[in-house]
Amino acid sequence: MMYAHSATGVSPLARKVVIIGGGAAGIGAAGAAKAADPSNDVVVYTSFEDVGYSPCGIPYVHGKEIPDFQRLFLATKETYENVGIDIHYETTVRSFDPANRTVEVEGEGTTSYDELIVATGFDYQDPGVPGGDLGGLYYVKNIRAAMEWDKVLDSVQRAVVVEASPLGLEMVTALAHRGIETHLVDPHPWALGELCDPDVAGPVQESWAEMGVTMHWNTTLRGFVGGGGQVRAVETSDGEIPAELVVVATHKVPNNALALAAGLKAGSTGGLVVDARMATSASHVWAAGDVCEIPHGLGGLPLQGLTGSHAYAQGKVAGTNAAGGERSYQPVYVPWGMVAGKWMIGGVALGEVAAAALGIPHVVGRATGISRARYYPDVKQVRVKLLAEPGTLRLIGAQLVGGEGIKERADFLAVCVRKGITLHDLATMENVYSPPIGALNEPISVAAQDGVATAAKQV
Amino acid sequence: MMYAHSATGVSPLARKVVIIGGGAAGIGAAGAAKAADPSNDVVVYTSFEDVGYSPCGIPYVHGKEIPDFQRLFLATKETYENVGIDIHYETTVRSFDPANRTVEVEGEGTTSYDELIVATGFDYQDPGVPGGDLGGLYYVKNIRAAMEWDKVLDSVQRAVVVEASPLGLEMVTALAHRGIETHLVDPHPWALGELCDPDVAGPVQESWAEMGVTMHWNTTLRGFVGGGGQVRAVETSDGEIPAELVVVATHKVPNNALALAAGLKAGSTGGLVVDARMATSASHVWAAGDVCEIPHGLGGLPLQGLTGSHAYAQGKVAGTNAAGGERSYQPVYVPWGMVAGKWMIGGVALGEVAAAALGIPHVVGRATGISRARYYPDVKQVRVKLLAEPGTLRLIGAQLVGGEGIKERADFLAVCVRKGITLHDLATMENVYSPPIGALNEPISVAAQDGVATAAKQV
Repeated sequence: MMYAHSATGVSPLARKVVIIGGGAAGIGAAGAAKAADPSNDVVVYTSFEDVGYSPCGIPYVHGKEIPDFQRLFLATKETYENVGIDIHYETTVRSFDPANRTVEVEGEGTTSYDELIVATGFDYQDPGVPGGDLGGLYYVKNIRAAMEWDKVLDSVQRAVVVEASPLGLEMVTALAHRGIETHLVDPHPWALGELCDPDVAGPVQESWAEMGVTMHWNTTLRGFVGGGGQVRAVETSDGEIPAELVVVATHKVPNNALALAAGLKAGSTGGLVVDARMATSASHVWAAGDVCEIPHGLGGLPLQGLTGSHAYAQGKVAGTNAAGGERSYQPVYVPWGMVAGKWMIGGVALGEVAAAALGIPHVVGRATGISRARYYPDVKQVRVKLLAEPGTLRLIGAQLVGGEGIKERADFLAVCVRKGITLHDLATMENVYSPPIGALNEPISVAAQDGVATAAKQV
Repeated sequence: MMYAHSATGVSPLARKVVIIGGGAAGIGAAGAAKAADPSNDVVVYTSFEDVGYSPCGIPYVHGKEIPDFQRLFLATKETYENVGIDIHYETTVRSFDPANRTVEVEGEGTTSYDELIVATGFDYQDPGVPGGDLGGLYYVKNIRAAMEWDKVLDSVQRAVVVEASPLGLEMVTALAHRGIETHLVDPHPWALGELCDPDVAGPVQESWAEMGVTMHWNTTLRGFVGGGGQVRAVETSDGEIPAELVVVATHKVPNNALALAAGLKAGSTGGLVVDARMATSASHVWAAGDVCEIPHGLGGLPLQGLTGSHAYAQGKVAGTNAAGGERSYQPVYVPWGMVAGKWMIGGVALGEVAAAALGIPHVVGRATGISRARYYPDVKQVRVKLLAEPGTLRLIGAQLVGGEGIKERADFLAVCVRKGITLHDLATMENVYSPPIGALNEPISVAAQDGVATAAKQV
């Protein structure tokens, strides 16, 4: 069945591409498989009622920044019908068989495929404590469920967010915005403890304190305490915290059960092992999104549980290749960013804490700068920290906190890490200077100059 | 007198560093010369009453975005006294003599130097038409003059801005904001005609039209028409435009008279020729800022009349080297950006018009994207155009127009041009996806994907 993608778009032999999962990876894959060859038969199975919406927007509707859930829908069901993508909603795939190239679909029986794409996404890690079956435990994921939870939030007085994960940070901020007394429980000493350095998390935590959030750091979750089947409190190493609602924002784990049952190889993270074309260990089976693990560009350690943007890009690669095209996915450096409290934070690759934990030697350059001319309205602070390899001064990571321009700088620095850009390069970079949009000195450049000076002293 | 900079900061032999000019280049040089060795005697001559303010902020005070001129002062006279920089205000340098290492200062006589830094900046090109001596012709530069002109603006009904230069764009926007009937006269067919492509200038011009600005494109200035010594109208190839005030925003030309009289070598732009250390053709004489010309990183053509950020960075290099340190300046790619009308525009290196004019072959990638999730409040359009060398697809230029994140993207793309990053690299870049700060797809990446696809079709 392997043949080159026809440049004319007319394939000598249409194929049936089956996709399990209707999230960013699955929909990205479906679009790419259809675009690569419109004569392909593209079928998507999703256990949910909808596709084509942004689950990442849910916290902002809860926080009232966005007025309603309808705005999160980016495409209608007709959009997919019109391009010939056949989506089976509320349909559960029971199993698949790579040897016979068949999928077992609940209520539909057995169907065959030429190429299969596994895009089954993630689950939240089971907190593994008593009381996990109580009502009032909210796992933020599906939009229909979120609509129901949003009504619940209207009467919630006190809420606990379990874990200062990226979603945890968004939900703490959202619940506090909404005027709910919010507690955060996390086993680390600060927010995003495995990803983010304390000097970057610090301003976020200060602004949460100003918003009335109570933070319980170094605190272990011990259980959910109920009454009448509903959660009434969260039991922790720091004592019991009364709450009518708990957002369980634990780590994402790959939803890999179907794939493991079919014999696909998973890696140390539990994510499916894929090659650069997003091919799994089974022939004619591809995977994309949170069900996979992807090598980190620095050192190749596998990563799992990336962003919607990664899932969508991986879906496009898997879909193109499944459809007979040729596209490859690169190791990741994972630029990240979000709004938390009143700040934007972000970064890429290694921070100081991660580098220290991994025993990776590094030089650090720091700067606190501004986003516009000092005298221009709405000027914001921008703090930049750059990590570089000693000697070469190649950039190996960055962390940022500020009031604007954090996402754009994180994207930039991710390309710098990937391409081997050095602190010398960044120390001498040019920058736009225009009072309403940029300061005389770019904070990235000043941080790089600081790192170069620090490295010179260490020699 | 040449010796290596002592790493301890204690020099075996202090030197006298004289700087002509108190703008960004001169002040950058003074600070660097003092920082490199605090025992240096650092003297600055300026013909103006002040240093340490931001002339780039003047249009925004006129436009009422910034409430008063005091905010543009970033340092007091005491700041410089305290660090031991000796500034002679309202002092004119008549000449200098590299052979004897002396400077002739009006009212002070002859003084000697060990190292001299020429930072005499720019003048606006003389429009070379009748009526240039009339009152009411405003050359935006000095803050004290700007304070007086700001009072005049209170009673101005109609103003003409001559040339759609970067300053011209800022002043058109400012005058229109202020409610003055504003006309713009320019010989090119669109704004920033030599720098900017028409598809990027277009949205700016639409928003000016909405603001009531009258644009006279392809229009030549013929003279200033006066009455009672004051300008009353501007005579153009498009007819006479009545006005009580004219902002003459012609090109910057190097203020090189002193340096030429001293025998320093100037290049084709009229700017002083400097090496990578900012040394001029005369020994112990350095130069920085708008009086210099700097090679473009693509092809080495000399450029003159860059930004305050460039001037400041060049000043630091010249000051460090003059003081016995070692620092070099790189060829420039000139990221640029500004607010014009209701848009931000920007870019780096070549646009399509410039590439076509220079006969440089290029592949273009385009995308119109968004700055945040589509449903998030204050989401803005971001249009990106990337130019790349055919074959290698190395980036050779970019142009941008949008509502936010333009400066950060222009800075990023400038590093990409300098470091040989390709459209392939950008097509596969990762990006931060978080609804309040970044969209699923980064417009730079989508434009690169478009360029890669376009290039593939051309092969």
